[in-house]
Amino acid sequence: MVQYPTTVDRAFAALADPTRRAVLERLGGGTASISELAEPFGISLTGMKKHVRILEDAELATTEKVGRTRVCRAGPRRLEDVHEWSATYRRMLEERLDRLGELLERTKGDQQ
Amino acid sequence: MVQYPTTVDRAFAALADPTRRAVLERLGGGTASISELAEPFGISLTGMKKHVRILEDAELATTEKVGRTRVCRAGPRRLEDVHEWSATYRRMLEERLDRLGELLERTKGDQQ
Repeated sequence: MVQYPTTVDRAFAALADPTRRAVLERLGGGTASISELAEPFGISLTGMKKHVRILEDAELATTEKVGRTRVCRAGPRRLEDVHEWSATYRRMLEERLDRLGELLERTKGDQQ
Repeated sequence: MVQYPTTVDRAFAALADPTRRAVLERLGGGTASISELAEPFGISLTGMKKHVRILEDAELATTEKVGRTRVCRAGPRRLEDVHEWSATYRRMLEERLDRLGELLERTKGDQQ
């Protein structure tokens, strides 16, 4: 069975690259052109276009052609699903640690 | 320049697969053997071992050989860096929206 990646799969995959995370941080501060994004990393426009395309596919960035420039901006998604998943998982682990802690306390009590 | 993936890169990449996220959720509830993890997904032990290996490389799971069984458990990492990155990014976007909102309010005030 072939599973097609969902938006949350694509978001996690997009964020697995440090350049793409840095691009999102940059876009978090305001719009930028492809060349403005590429410049600080010393990578080619083609390379940056590929990164931006992956962010677009994950709905983490949009681009708009303005004259001869492609303007990139953050959004529409704001990591809602990524954040929610990681928060739920962390809460689950904490609750389990709490339960283990309580069990340990009770066991200690029994031994005294 | 070859960039080697960092722990946070590996964590995001590991989480990009829905089976691996479901495995972590299962391990969040307690330890499980490879076959216990594989069974609900109807995938082979070899397939599940590969997924678990990727989670181990990202330090999101550990495994221990107990007799003939390989026992998997969540941790040591608990998505600290993934959660922190997504929280910081979301905060950055919110602050920017707040600033844009204030600017809009001020512009409206000027026009009245």
